Amino acid sequence: MNAPVFAEFPVTLECRLKSYDEKTSHLFGEIVNITADDSVLTDGKIDISKLKPISYNPVAHTYHVVNGEPCAAAFSCGSALK
Amino acid sequence: MNAPVFAEFPVTLECRLKSYDEKTSHLFGEIVNITADDSVLTDGKIDISKLKPISYNPVAHTYHVVNGEPCAAAFSCGSALK
Repeated sequence: MNAPVFAEFPVTLECRLKSYDEKTSHLFGEIVNITADDSVLTDGKIDISKLKPISYNPVAHTYHVVNGEPCAAAFSCGSALK
Repeated sequence: MNAPVFAEFPVTLECRLKSYDEKTSHLFGEIVNITADDSVLTDGKIDISKLKPISYNPVAHTYHVVNGEPCAAAFSCGSALK
């Protein structure tokens, strides 16, 4: 890809346009490349506790940091209920 | 709406199907009703610090709790940079 990126952003998802619906404004992109700053990596993988991503609350119009420490492992945590 | 809901879920978004694309499996629903347990409300509004929503990390396959305390106010935090 040769798209310009914000150098200040620790992570960038470069996408190719897949579809755009003018009626709904829904836009889909296929992720074709991910760039990440060394400061947010651990063993070459993006580390949530270093990236500190935020989530948007559309009710209160506030941003909230996502905890770095996982609360559960997907796909396996449910097996404790079997 | 008259759809069945899981009584154990503190919040339920009841949706009406807007569109479904068999090729991509993309499904859109229009939220027509929100039910919330009293235990996650503050002054009648859903309180993130009580709800403790989780976010999914598709790289590490882990779930992460979203912090209840906001880190910034949307739409107004940028005005400090003017």
